[in-house]
Amino acid sequence: MRNPQLNRNGELTHLLSIEGLPRAVINHVLDTAASYAPLAENEVKKVPLLHGKSVFNLFFENSTRTRTTFEIAAKRLSADVYNLNINASSASKGESLLDTINNLSAMQADLFVVRHASSGAPHLIAQHVAPHIHVINAGDGRHAHPTQGLLDMYTIRHYKKDFTNLTVAIVGDVLHSRVARSDIHALTTLGVPEVRVIAPLTLLPAGMESLGVKVFTDMAEGLKGVDVIIMLRLQNERMRGALLPSAQEYFKHYGLTQDKLALAAPDAIVMHPGPMNRGVEIDSSVADGKQAVILNQVTFGIAVRMAVMSIVAGA
Amino acid sequence: MRNPQLNRNGELTHLLSIEGLPRAVINHVLDTAASYAPLAENEVKKVPLLHGKSVFNLFFENSTRTRTTFEIAAKRLSADVYNLNINASSASKGESLLDTINNLSAMQADLFVVRHASSGAPHLIAQHVAPHIHVINAGDGRHAHPTQGLLDMYTIRHYKKDFTNLTVAIVGDVLHSRVARSDIHALTTLGVPEVRVIAPLTLLPAGMESLGVKVFTDMAEGLKGVDVIIMLRLQNERMRGALLPSAQEYFKHYGLTQDKLALAAPDAIVMHPGPMNRGVEIDSSVADGKQAVILNQVTFGIAVRMAVMSIVAGA
Amino acid sequence: MRNPQLNRNGELTHLLSIEGLPRAVINHVLDTAASYAPLAENEVKKVPLLHGKSVFNLFFENSTRTRTTFEIAAKRLSADVYNLNINASSASKGESLLDTINNLSAMQADLFVVRHASSGAPHLIAQHVAPHIHVINAGDGRHAHPTQGLLDMYTIRHYKKDFTNLTVAIVGDVLHSRVARSDIHALTTLGVPEVRVIAPLTLLPAGMESLGVKVFTDMAEGLKGVDVIIMLRLQNERMRGALLPSAQEYFKHYGLTQDKLALAAPDAIVMHPGPMNRGVEIDSSVADGKQAVILNQVTFGIAVRMAVMSIVAGA
Repeated sequence: MRNPQLNRNGELTHLLSIEGLPRAVINHVLDTAASYAPLAENEVKKVPLLHGKSVFNLFFENSTRTRTTFEIAAKRLSADVYNLNINASSASKGESLLDTINNLSAMQADLFVVRHASSGAPHLIAQHVAPHIHVINAGDGRHAHPTQGLLDMYTIRHYKKDFTNLTVAIVGDVLHSRVARSDIHALTTLGVPEVRVIAPLTLLPAGMESLGVKVFTDMAEGLKGVDVIIMLRLQNERMRGALLPSAQEYFKHYGLTQDKLALAAPDAIVMHPGPMNRGVEIDSSVADGKQAVILNQVTFGIAVRMAVMSIVAGA
Repeated sequence: MRNPQLNRNGELTHLLSIEGLPRAVINHVLDTAASYAPLAENEVKKVPLLHGKSVFNLFFENSTRTRTTFEIAAKRLSADVYNLNINASSASKGESLLDTINNLSAMQADLFVVRHASSGAPHLIAQHVAPHIHVINAGDGRHAHPTQGLLDMYTIRHYKKDFTNLTVAIVGDVLHSRVARSDIHALTTLGVPEVRVIAPLTLLPAGMESLGVKVFTDMAEGLKGVDVIIMLRLQNERMRGALLPSAQEYFKHYGLTQDKLALAAPDAIVMHPGPMNRGVEIDSSVADGKQAVILNQVTFGIAVRMAVMSIVAGA
Repeated sequence: MRNPQLNRNGELTHLLSIEGLPRAVINHVLDTAASYAPLAENEVKKVPLLHGKSVFNLFFENSTRTRTTFEIAAKRLSADVYNLNINASSASKGESLLDTINNLSAMQADLFVVRHASSGAPHLIAQHVAPHIHVINAGDGRHAHPTQGLLDMYTIRHYKKDFTNLTVAIVGDVLHSRVARSDIHALTTLGVPEVRVIAPLTLLPAGMESLGVKVFTDMAEGLKGVDVIIMLRLQNERMRGALLPSAQEYFKHYGLTQDKLALAAPDAIVMHPGPMNRGVEIDSSVADGKQAVILNQVTFGIAVRMAVMSIVAGA
């Protein structure tokens, strides 16, 4: 069975999940992003690669921040961008997801950027659309957030150059995190020899070890000597019931402080997908400290999304 | 009294309603749309006709789908597009409709696309604005939806070539449908010899016959030998009180199934303005069947809206 | 201590408040706006000055009208514009204002247009951002609305040529009005010899005289011989408790009617920042009369906002 993200020539035609992406495809995205990164320094930050193309931001779940990063990436490629908040419209008129997609396709869409609360919705759309239409997953349920995963890889490569001698720790609410899942697949594909996951038992999904990661419930132990720390947002709004005693208790055990950071390698970098809960999963002195590369991730994210859009649109 | 939609030279300057439009004007829109339709196949789907013009989508009633089709059409003509959801702003501050229009006009608007829950609002606006500003009705109350009517005519002409030998049936919630009204005026103006309306008595407005249509309450009888079937959306959200026993009952009598479709001419086409209620007014096997041209309507709709915008802006 | 709005060369780098702006800077804005005003008559109303720049409309408080004027100004300068309604997104996820700003800055923003319910929010942002990012205050709390103040000055200069021989009256809800505050600072800086404020005691803030204005509670007395009347919107939505007996009572005493207008100079102009409450602070015969320049203010406002954006972006 063919990988639904690749065309017959093995080129990326949709970006749905990092799981199953060949290392060469990931590296192609990172290399292409590196070619766009210097644009940020230019007076005119635009290139005409997608001029005349129509990019639809289909956000079935509200996320101004993620939507904006895709809108910026698309406009820097000179595409026309249409923002559709689907909850407020057709969905309330009872139209099915695929009828909505059919309609937008008939308006000659070139690219759908899809955010959806249901895991798998972007896959469903990708299977359904005509071959000249491309789908990018901008976050689906707890499943995947592949552009975040790719920008995390871009960031690590930027600061650490080589993946094959790194120890990377992912810390926090792994259970609800599509970012964690995307990062783990990316890191193992790129040859990181040791990926660690650090979380309280109640926020650890079952079967983590089968993904090739080492599981720690003690943060001090898990951070020892790591080169990269990826903090996860504590997804308060997703919690059902009492998985945690309190935010204060969580911070005490799993919040990244200067003391805990000192256990990592001296040149370790600190990452976070944002938005941060200061004083919950991360202390402000670390978030604003010299090892943090959190805002650089945001900057790289524009170049990475431009790379993904231009690659799939050219495939 | 002069037709408010035409300027002194008889050219279209506003599109408010198909009622009262000369056949030559309708044909001019359809011919212009035909010249834009091939753009959809191009790499770059844009033309610079409205470059530097300002198009305001004034949606006093939410409709993401319709708003998006106008936004696409305007951007394909290279206009700058401003989306204003008026409910959320000035209207809540108690500003009158005409003060809002005066203000936007003073911002050097070129074109207003107006959707409003009140019948006649676009007419009121068109009477009020300065001569260099153009108004397009994107649906007003139960009154008219002229761009839908024109794209329906474009679709029929595309598949049937000649209007003067056709039998066309409009089926469903005629009472609440501005689409039905616009289609009836367009079809009779274009010389369709037999226009039928099929609906339960409770969804039939009074005085239909005076518009030159034949009324049927029995669907089997009404569909006999027709060349074109225009299904209407069952406007659940507009129903006040119990006009209908149930959706199931409605589907049994007025839902378009393969069986009922077989009563029409063998090469009959099936149209629907969308969004469809599958299993209510139309069966999925028909909606997705080979006689359905529903998604083609959507595609043609972009070209038709581009045509209307470029014609009025040039008038 | 350096003026936070000016760079080391004394050039405008942020527009936060008219208070503290040198007369030369205000005149530079007005002169630049005058150079853009003729664009409104062109077929193509755009200039490429901000091509490739990213303007973010950050509206922490909803205002479709003001947001639209900035969006138009930015697009006429060929910038890419991003509209962010912040209430609906990050703010609800508990991210701090400065983290939101850091993130958008990392997306390579060039210009933030900020509307915020809290006085001082744009100042806070301006102090925080990197030197290449510029901030324009689009209204903060009761504090300032400097682009409205500047467009009011543009309007007065357009009709009266010289500020140094004028008497200007500002009438109405001064207590809640950021427009009044911005206008007073602008008028005194530009050398208007007599600025009057006319309001009921309950809508007069303390210490008005220290700003260099004459206070009147009797409208007939206050309007005598004035050259310019700036009516303020009665901010119904901001009233807490019973500052006023009723809208009718207010209109009787402070509503601008033809009779009251007759007390001003024969060539007095009538201004209003909009949206108007007809029959509350202004009679329709005055609002639509030949002395009203209210819609001209709106038109000038586009040119003034283009001027501010192009000046700060070039500073």
